[in-house]
Order: sequence, then C-alpha cells, then structure tokens
Amino acid sequence: MQPKIEVGILGATGMVGQQFAKFLQGHPWFEITWLGASDRSAGKFYREATGWRLDGAMPANVAGLRVQECKPDDAPRLMFSSMDASVVTDIEQAFARAGHVVVSNSRNHRMEPDVPLLIPEVNPDHLKIIPLQQRKRGWKGQIATNPNCSTIVLALALAPLKQFGIRRVIATTMQAISGAGYPGVASMDINGNVIPYIGNEEEKMESETQKILGDFAGDSIIPLAAKVSAQCNRVPVVDGHMVAISVELERKPELPEMIAAMSTFSSAPQERKLPSAPPNPIIYLPENDRPQPRRDVERERGMAVFVGRLRKCPVLDFKFMALGHNTIRGAAGAAVLNAELMYSEGLLD
Amino acid sequence: MQPKIEVGILGATGMVGQQFAKFLQGHPWFEITWLGASDRSAGKFYREATGWRLDGAMPANVAGLRVQECKPDDAPRLMFSSMDASVVTDIEQAFARAGHVVVSNSRNHRMEPDVPLLIPEVNPDHLKIIPLQQRKRGWKGQIATNPNCSTIVLALALAPLKQFGIRRVIATTMQAISGAGYPGVASMDINGNVIPYIGNEEEKMESETQKILGDFAGDSIIPLAAKVSAQCNRVPVVDGHMVAISVELERKPELPEMIAAMSTFSSAPQERKLPSAPPNPIIYLPENDRPQPRRDVERERGMAVFVGRLRKCPVLDFKFMALGHNTIRGAAGAAVLNAELMYSEGLLD
Amino acid sequence: MQPKIEVGILGATGMVGQQFAKFLQGHPWFEITWLGASDRSAGKFYREATGWRLDGAMPANVAGLRVQECKPDDAPRLMFSSMDASVVTDIEQAFARAGHVVVSNSRNHRMEPDVPLLIPEVNPDHLKIIPLQQRKRGWKGQIATNPNCSTIVLALALAPLKQFGIRRVIATTMQAISGAGYPGVASMDINGNVIPYIGNEEEKMESETQKILGDFAGDSIIPLAAKVSAQCNRVPVVDGHMVAISVELERKPELPEMIAAMSTFSSAPQERKLPSAPPNPIIYLPENDRPQPRRDVERERGMAVFVGRLRKCPVLDFKFMALGHNTIRGAAGAAVLNAELMYSEGLLD
Amino acid sequence: MQPKIEVGILGATGMVGQQFAKFLQGHPWFEITWLGASDRSAGKFYREATGWRLDGAMPANVAGLRVQECKPDDAPRLMFSSMDASVVTDIEQAFARAGHVVVSNSRNHRMEPDVPLLIPEVNPDHLKIIPLQQRKRGWKGQIATNPNCSTIVLALALAPLKQFGIRRVIATTMQAISGAGYPGVASMDINGNVIPYIGNEEEKMESETQKILGDFAGDSIIPLAAKVSAQCNRVPVVDGHMVAISVELERKPELPEMIAAMSTFSSAPQERKLPSAPPNPIIYLPENDRPQPRRDVERERGMAVFVGRLRKCPVLDFKFMALGHNTIRGAAGAAVLNAELMYSEGLLD
Repeated sequence: MQPKIEVGILGATGMVGQQFAKFLQGHPWFEITWLGASDRSAGKFYREATGWRLDGAMPANVAGLRVQECKPDDAPRLMFSSMDASVVTDIEQAFARAGHVVVSNSRNHRMEPDVPLLIPEVNPDHLKIIPLQQRKRGWKGQIATNPNCSTIVLALALAPLKQFGIRRVIATTMQAISGAGYPGVASMDINGNVIPYIGNEEEKMESETQKILGDFAGDSIIPLAAKVSAQCNRVPVVDGHMVAISVELERKPELPEMIAAMSTFSSAPQERKLPSAPPNPIIYLPENDRPQPRRDVERERGMAVFVGRLRKCPVLDFKFMALGHNTIRGAAGAAVLNAELMYSEGLLD
Repeated sequence: MQPKIEVGILGATGMVGQQFAKFLQGHPWFEITWLGASDRSAGKFYREATGWRLDGAMPANVAGLRVQECKPDDAPRLMFSSMDASVVTDIEQAFARAGHVVVSNSRNHRMEPDVPLLIPEVNPDHLKIIPLQQRKRGWKGQIATNPNCSTIVLALALAPLKQFGIRRVIATTMQAISGAGYPGVASMDINGNVIPYIGNEEEKMESETQKILGDFAGDSIIPLAAKVSAQCNRVPVVDGHMVAISVELERKPELPEMIAAMSTFSSAPQERKLPSAPPNPIIYLPENDRPQPRRDVERERGMAVFVGRLRKCPVLDFKFMALGHNTIRGAAGAAVLNAELMYSEGLLD
Repeated sequence: MQPKIEVGILGATGMVGQQFAKFLQGHPWFEITWLGASDRSAGKFYREATGWRLDGAMPANVAGLRVQECKPDDAPRLMFSSMDASVVTDIEQAFARAGHVVVSNSRNHRMEPDVPLLIPEVNPDHLKIIPLQQRKRGWKGQIATNPNCSTIVLALALAPLKQFGIRRVIATTMQAISGAGYPGVASMDINGNVIPYIGNEEEKMESETQKILGDFAGDSIIPLAAKVSAQCNRVPVVDGHMVAISVELERKPELPEMIAAMSTFSSAPQERKLPSAPPNPIIYLPENDRPQPRRDVERERGMAVFVGRLRKCPVLDFKFMALGHNTIRGAAGAAVLNAELMYSEGLLD
Repeated sequence: MQPKIEVGILGATGMVGQQFAKFLQGHPWFEITWLGASDRSAGKFYREATGWRLDGAMPANVAGLRVQECKPDDAPRLMFSSMDASVVTDIEQAFARAGHVVVSNSRNHRMEPDVPLLIPEVNPDHLKIIPLQQRKRGWKGQIATNPNCSTIVLALALAPLKQFGIRRVIATTMQAISGAGYPGVASMDINGNVIPYIGNEEEKMESETQKILGDFAGDSIIPLAAKVSAQCNRVPVVDGHMVAISVELERKPELPEMIAAMSTFSSAPQERKLPSAPPNPIIYLPENDRPQPRRDVERERGMAVFVGRLRKCPVLDFKFMALGHNTIRGAAGAAVLNAELMYSEGLLD
C-alpha cells in the first residue's frame, strides 16, 4: 500500500475549509496534514479554532492538528484553497511561486486567461494551459480553479449538449443557503422567503460557463460563443442548487437523444476511475417532479448532477431542471476531483 | 347610504372560499349573504362546516350563515365561484343560465372563446364578449373568470410592455404553498425543498397569458402572438408567487422608460377608483434584492404586483422579477376586482 | 385636538428601534421627532443609516429625520431605548440624570431593585418605586423597563393565576428568530432545525418572572416566592414565542374557573383605555391545536397573549400553552404601553 | 456464510414500511422477501404500488417484489408490522395465531398487559412475558412492540437514571413532521409555525414510559410508579424529535455522575453486538447548544439518543435535552433492533 499524498488546506476554519476536511475523510490518495487559516487562528488546535458548522462531529484526524499561518514554508506540495477573496490572490500566488500546486475554490483566479477553470468531466484538456501559466508567471507551482457552485451545475448539465451546438441559454437558479457560507444568510432574511439576488452570481454564471465550455486552442482558452443569461435566487433550502434551464441548439435532437446524451455522458474521471468521480456525472430522473434538493442532493455522494423534466421550450428549443450539491460537487468535492485529475495527469509529480 | 349588493360564494368552505369571506369583510359595495358548498356541508352553520385555515379568526358576519346546496334558487344575483374542477362547470353554467352573474376563480371556463379571462387593469374591454356569450348560450346571466394565480403576476407585469411589442417571454416561477389549497402540499414534500413541478401550471401560464394580452376584435378575442414559456416550481413560502421573467420586445426601450411604463401603468380600475383597486397596480422596487414574498406580498392589501431588478438580458432583451399575492391578487381579490369592474360597467344592473 | 407628545428613540437603527418606528406610526399621543444611534450613523438621514428589515416599507415620517448622537441635549423628554447592552447603561443613566423619562427595552436596568420591570396589566403599582429611584440616584428623570420578550408571555399568562397562589412553574419555550435581532440567527443554524439554547434567556425568564409577579412593599419590590424553571429553544418561526407551561398552585381551581380567570383578566390599561392596550390582554383559544404562532400572533395588533390547551398536569397541577408576539408585546409594544401607563399616571408631566 | 433469515413487512407501502425497506438494505441477518399491503396494492410490483417518499431511490432489492395481501399463508415467519391502526389488530393477531413472530411498530398492542413494549437497551427482560402471551392467547406465534417515536427518546434517556429513583418527569417535545407519516402534516399548517397538539401523543408518552421503565415481576409487567407529564408540539423539522425534560429523583447525584451514567449506559444489544445496536445508546454532547435535530440526528445511523445541556432544575432536580431519530430509532430501527434481540434470545428458533 502506497503512502498517501499529504495535502494542506488554506482557509481551513471557514465553511469550505470544513467541507474539505469532511470530504477528505478516508480519501484513498490524499491525507490532510496541514491546516492554514488567518493569523487569529494560527497556533491553536483546529478543534479550538473552528466553530464546526457541518452535520455530525468534526473529523478526528484534523481536530488535533495545529492551525498554521498561510505561508508556504513547510506546507505540503498539494494545497486546497478557500479563503476570503480579499486576501486569497496574494496567498495563492505566493504558494504557486514557491512551487505548490494550488487547487482553489476561490473566485479570484478563475477568469485569468492562463488559469484553468476546471470541471474534470467537461474540460480536462484546459489543464494544458498550465505550462503557459508557469512560463508566463515564472512559477514552479501552479494554480487550478473550480467554478462557482451554481456554474458547475449549469455547465455540467450543458456539457453533453455541446455536440448539438449551444447557441443560447437562459438559467434561473434557486440556490441553497449553504452557498453563502457561515453565518451567511440571516434567518430573518430567508425564513419562508425568496431573495432574488446573490451578489455577482449572475455575472459569474454567465462568464464562467462560457470559459468552461470553451476550447483549448494551443495557447489560450477560447470561450464558447453561446449567449448565457442567469437570474439567481436564494431559497430556504439547506443544500443543493436548482437551475431551471432553457437552451437553444444549432441541431435539434429528439428528446430521447438528448436524454441519452446526458445519461451516457462520461469522461476522463470516469475512465480513470478517479476516487471522487461519480460513475455517471449526470443522472436523468424520469419522474415528473424531480430532481428535488432535499431528496436527491445527497445521492452519489453529492458528486452527480441530477437532471429532469426535459421537454420542448416554446421560446428556445428545450427546457429542463438541473440540481447539484453546492458544497460538494460545487466546492470541496469539485476541488478534490480536480486534484485527482491533476494527479492522474502527472501534474503532482 | 346605499344598501349593499348581496353576494354569494360557491365553494365557500374551501380555501379560496375562505379567502373570499376574509377579503370581503367590510367591503363597501358587496355583502356576503349566501354561502354554498358541497351537499356534505349544506345545512350546517358555516362555522361548523368549515375548518378555518387562514390567519386570524373566522369573520363573524359569515360564521353564523347556513351553508346552502349549490343551486341557483334563492341565491343572490352576484356569485363568486371557486369549486373543485370536477363539478364547477355544471354548477357555474346552471347559475348563469338562471340569470346569475358568475365571477369565477375556477379554471374550467377560462379558455372558452366567449368567456372573458379578465384582469381589470389589463383587458377590461374583453368584457365586451359577454353579450356574445349570452346570445350564443341563451343565458340571461353570464360567466367571467380571472386567471390562474401565477398567470396574473406574469400578465400584469407584462401589460405595460405591450406597447413595445412583446415577442417572446421566458418565465420561471417560485410559487407559494398556499397556491395549492388545503391540505395541498405535504410538509414532507416541501420542507427545506423545492418541487420543480405543478400540474398543468405551465400550460395555463402560457396560454392564459396570450389570451389576456390579446385583443378584442369585435366578436372574438385574438390571443397575443407572443411566444411564452414557463417553468413552474413550488418553494417553501406561505404566500406570494415570484416570477423570474426574460422578455424580447420589438422596440427596445431604455431601462428608465420601461420602469416608467411599469410605475405609471394605470387603467380603468384606478380611474374609477374601484374599492379593491390598488392605486398603482405595479410597483417598481429599486432595491437590488426586492421584491421578496415575505416582506412585500402584504403591501397594498395584496393587490399590487411588485417588480424589481429590471436589467438587460444577454439572451432576450430584458429580465426582471415580479411578485404577486397568489390568494389575493391571484384569486379572491382578483375575482372581487372583476366584479367591481363589471358593476362599474353596468353589467350587474 | 391636543398636540402630540414628542418622543425619541435611542438605538433607532437596530431591529427594536425599527419596531418602535413602525409601532408608533399613527400613534394618537406620541410622535417620533428624534432618532439616536451610534456615532457611525449620526448625521445621516434615517433612511440612509438604516437597513430596514421589517415587512413593508420604512414609515415616511421617520425616513427623513436625521440620526443624532445619543446625548440628552435637545432630545425630547420621553425616550424609548433599545441599544446594545455594552453601552446602554451609561446612556440611559445620562438621559435619566438629565431629566428624561427613559422607557427601556434593554436588559441592563431590569433587575435593579429601584427600577420597575413593568407589565402594565400585571404590576402597574411597581411604578411607585420611581420616587425612590429618583431620590436614591439624584435623578430628575427616571428609568422604567419592560421584561425580556419570552418573560412577558410567561408572566402575563401567569398573572391571572396569582390569586390561586403560584408555587412552582416549569416553562419550555419555542422562540421565534426575530427575537435575536438582525442578522441574529444564521439560517444555516435554524433552517429545519431547533437550537436548544438561547444565551442567558433561561436565567432572565426565571428571575424576571419572580420580580414582575412580586409585590410592591412600600419601599421595595418583593419577588414572588414561586420557583420557576425555564428551558429555552429557538425554532424556525419568524414571529411569536410559544411557551409550554406547567404550574403548581396552592389552591386548586377547576379548569373553567381558571379559563374564566384568564379570559376576564383586565387591569389598569384596559380600564384607562390606553391606546395600545388590547381589550383583553389574555385570550383563551378553545380549539385543541391553538395557539399557533403563524396564525395567531398578529391578532389584536400583536398585543394580546394567546392561551390554549389548559388541562390537568400529572406532575404539577395544570399545563397549558401561551403565545405572544415577541417584537410587539415582547418589545416595542411593551415599552409603548409602559409609556402610556406612565403618562396616565402623570409621570410624564 | 449462513443464509439470511427471510422477513416480511406488513404495511410495506406506507411511510414506516418504506423505512423498513430502507433500513434493512444490506442487513447482515435479515432479508426482505415478502411485502404485504392493502388489497388495493396487492398484486402490483412494489415499485408500482409505492409512492416512494424517502430520500434517495427505492432499494433495488424490494422494487421488483410483488405486493401480497396481508394474510399469513406463505409469508416468512418473522414479520415487521406497521399498518393503519384501524386494521392492524386483526392482522397482527392472525399472523401470531398462525405462528408468526410479529415485531410491530403499530400502537394497538403496545399497552396489552401480555405484550412486551420493548426497548432492547432498557427492558430486554420484558420479553419474558411472551410465553404467558402465547399460553393465554393460544398462539404459536407472538407479538412484540416498540414504543411510540417520542416515547423512545424519553424512555431511553431516562433509563440510566432509573438507578437514582425516578419520581416525576415533565417532558415537552418538539417533534418532526416525518412522525406524522405521508401526506401527514399539511405544509400550510406547519411552514414557519408550531402546532401545539399531536393527537393522543401525550397520553402515549405518559403511559408507555411507565410501562417500559417498569419491572417484569414473574407473570406481569409492573409499570414504574413515577409520574410523567408530556406536552407535545410539532415543529418544522424533517427528522428528529427533541424533548426538553425535567426530572425529580429520589437520590440526588452530582451532574458528572449523571453524565457518566448516561454516557456509559449499555445493555444487552451492546454486549451481544446486535447489528443495529449503536455502540453507545446514549451520547452526551458537551456543547451548550446541542443536540440539534438537523445536525445530530443522522449520527450513529440514527440509532442513538443524543443528550445535552444537563443542569439543575429549580423546580424538579435536573433538566436536559434529548434527541432521537423518530423514523429510525423511533420506528423502523427500533423494530429491527427488537427482532435482533429476539433472535439473540432464541425467540425466532
């Protein structure tokens, strides 16, 4: 049995940091040995520094680790990152410069032209931009990012339709409160309510989707030319972002052909049997009232996107619903799967 | 002081029937003197026959009325109707045949070519189809209907845009549980969840909107030629249907022109100061996170539609949010305002 | 028509401050002319300084007032107070020293022996401690307080039972999120959940109840000798604190006698027809599943306590449920009613 | 490897029936081979007859079984039962008469003097009443029952305190909606609300607790002489019943002694390592705001009772919170653990 690869977490005490700790419990390849957080937490045991907000108890393997300052020094080579946007740019770059592989859930580097915005099933070839990134920035290390939690659901659901030529997409989200971190959304704001606004979310969904579905063209990533419009809403659901999607395609498949394209969609993570890859990244639910966040979001360990209600759209061509687990497939699990893909590509060697 | 007009309610013990009873409390023109329900309830006092489900106590003026069978006989001329779809066609027609003015919230007659599907601010002239209805069916009475609760929000919000030429509309709803009556949605289905399906709702929103925004052409109502696509979802909110709307227009106004068109929109009910008419049927909220169902839906006595977040849509032309009170503006209040309009037109004489 | 009495609010931008502004809209005696808040807000218009969190729009009469620093200077004589516990002691005392009548919702002075902890229907005679307070502290002004939001529900529900001799009380609360202010309880904590802890709440309920139900004995208030035990829980309800109560009495009345004692309970505020006094401070609901917060809490303008399910307790003597509106009867409305009582006693002369 | 014991489910299509199907997936001893339901369902495949309401998909091993009429004939010897109270008495007795071992979650036989009301950790010796039951009723088979879902939480939490002499107990519950089955509680009733009434629940908690904590005295079960008072409330939580408990004891232990008694509590199921037995049936959580239903109820596979906030009670002696999973520890899991205990006692031979 091979020794596990040591990994560190930047922003370990925050909500996504906690999700990393939870998701990596018992991971067959990776083992958390290093936790970094703000200076305020540094020096304390993780169990003291962290108000654990996830269901169940804090994993025992991290509870007794000491929280470090977010400096490269003796941190492991592979670093998962999720820190506040105001500080994360400098920290991630410092780690990349010092030779670390930074797999980031933060938004700061996502739209940089030389940084892959990765969904392993959708655009694994975007990793080829990394050498350019290293050359251009003079880094021994590297930064790869995963998309915003709502973008992942949309982009993964659209990926099997790329073959039909995606022209236009209108997406309306109903997003879970866990997407806002902790304390996040005030209960006085969301209890029995809908908030029709999430700061910068629509812009992120629109531009990130184009980049993810774009093509790697030798020395740059060419965004998909499709038009994308998003309306983002917060609803009183704990986990799981729902997206109502209408899409216009160049070629008009029959409904069964579209369902087959979604259901059989599979890519590098499935072929290589990456530990966190769902057997089927997209699962089409035939019942007329699915997917539903509370009932479906935990299936497939939170790593699949659930799709349903595919039907003709009187305005564009097709409409359907998609659901994904925002803190797993949309955050911690997304980054871990990215790291697994990068490992399988030899990028961690 | 003029004596009030006596009114009756068909389906008085159901949820919408209760809302009629609540909404008509203290109405300046109308007074409930007759309550009809299924044979099971007939003969009992309303307070015995009715499991009161609305906030607060049952209005005293109806509690002591005896529930009648739903037969025209000695019922008042003006009847509000809201009964189960399986029986309402025959009952409403029997009343209309017997000379009653039936103002219905039920869906059965809405799409009949000779029945007005009325929103007083939007298509008051559709009442002109009534003489045709009476002639064709040999009725002394008449039937007028109000739209489905989610349609009203969409159609009223779109009405001020008709002048710009509405071509295509995509609407995604987030609808309150009260829209499903009582017991309606099981708490096990909706608690912390979203249900992406409401039976027949999408079809109703699409076709009713076209009829409402259509034109009266002498002897028929010509539906608006715009394409409409709806995706309907149930969310854990008590009252208030939210609709995320994208719209394509023939003429492209500037945003301020559109906001002005909405904010100054006004019609017959406002000119005639009908008792249930809101001073402004559409209220544009400038805050970036409004409207919100729990915070806005009770304003203006639940009779206005609240609109916000108007902005450019990268796919169609504009996108925005609309909110309306589904059991008031979308049901009981809608029918009462219809009756007020009909009274002001002399149709109750 | 008499000119209205000018009033000021200390802590006007906070949640309870907003509730004062809302509750005092159209008040027949009092008119808000002065708003005080932290230095950060001072100088701004109220509409700029305040993130309005209550349903509906900010009242027009306060929106255009300028926020002041919390210094007595030119503030009105009658001041409502609701500020953060860390600063309120000094500020309230400064105002009282300067001759103001401070009617406080804050907790800091509640348990001071020379400060009345007032529920106008329960212990109006506790106001007689005020001269002692002024003498002892050398104040021209004065401070009166209202109880904690959950205490008010319990103490008001118990008041009619005092005649039977209250020996022991066990109370378990289910408290609304609005009781924690804004942002207050994180939605990630309370959505679909119960939190079995509210800081210091149990201690407050236990000791405040004894003081309120105690007797004024010439120069001090003697707390009621009854034992009180509270368990406080937060539940996902917007407004309305529910309390499950078991009580042991010296004399054992029959159930109808107890219900009559509650239903007919009435006191100074009712006799003097104080503007905010509910006609019946306690309303007994005979249905077996009432009171319910969402359905009952807004009745009687939020100023009554609703009681139901009175029955024998196998351990103590009786058990029943009580409900009160925590931000109205339990906060802003409580303080306003206190001020009305004080005015009717001539304490504002 | 031994062949598994075949088991059947009476009432397989209902909510608890579905929970049996889910809980028994992959059980090391038992295998579902027979599903019974009402005549309406009989003859259909389970997947057709059943509206699956639980999270995730229907287990594959039951989906293809044909639903049978509830007649003993060729059903397996070991039967789990959960049917409507109106029919279950006759059906369970018919099966017991025919030699089946009926392990019932239904309430009908719970309080029969010759039927064990079993919590394996609390009163395993009550199984000794079975021979009397068989003799008295002339049965080859037998019936054993598990308590009501809220009773289990209370009785299990109290069990370790029995050694100190339980005199009086006051319990106030906050119960999850899943306790009411499907469709169960209407969302219009419970959304953002508390319902202070659950039919017959208080009576069941009071009497069942006394029976469970009672002693087997050779030929009868003598209920515990303690007085128990319950107030039962429904709250908008999906799974997990919370109970606020005050208890009076004959001997007054120190708090650490009580915590130790709870934390180390262990009994036959633990000693025998029954497959569904939690390693520790009671887990004391030291945080001041735990247990919480959404965060704790799924721990230990839903089979432990979580206790917290133990402190002195000013009225009785001690107060604390307890939480249990109402559909697992309080229903399906309870019955399965009962069957495991019975198997380990040789009662299935």
